[in-house]
Amino acid sequence: MEIIGFISAILTTTAFLPQVYKTWKTKDVSILSFPMLLMFFLGIFMWLVYGFLKESPSMIFANAVTLISSFILLFFK
Amino acid sequence: MEIIGFISAILTTTAFLPQVYKTWKTKDVSILSFPMLLMFFLGIFMWLVYGFLKESPSMIFANAVTLISSFILLFFK
Repeated sequence: MEIIGFISAILTTTAFLPQVYKTWKTKDVSILSFPMLLMFFLGIFMWLVYGFLKESPSMIFANAVTLISSFILLFFK
Repeated sequence: MEIIGFISAILTTTAFLPQVYKTWKTKDVSILSFPMLLMFFLGIFMWLVYGFLKESPSMIFANAVTLISSFILLFFK
């Protein structure tokens, strides 16, 4: 079961990386709104908590990576 | 435990909606790349499968909503 979770994790976190890279390079976050980013960040944090409660390694991995990515986006905002 | 999952689900899916709405309105998906969107779509599909395997109502809900949202983005691409 965890292999499904890890494939999912790699697909969704990798898909998110170009946005983070682009933002890192350009420092341009004008297309992203602050409330939306904050909401996303909090949501991912809650998914991480849920992943621990469900004892799901793939959810913990995916949400930890995405939490860092979205923190970078928030940081530049 | 599911309440944590549902709060997460509402936060992350809601944060994603402005992008979908904007794309729907403008039909402009030039900032989104096709491989990235397809990867994201497949990843969300896999998370949905994982949600069923984990018997997690909040994961099933969140990933079903996001699957529809990302399908709309893919459709305009």
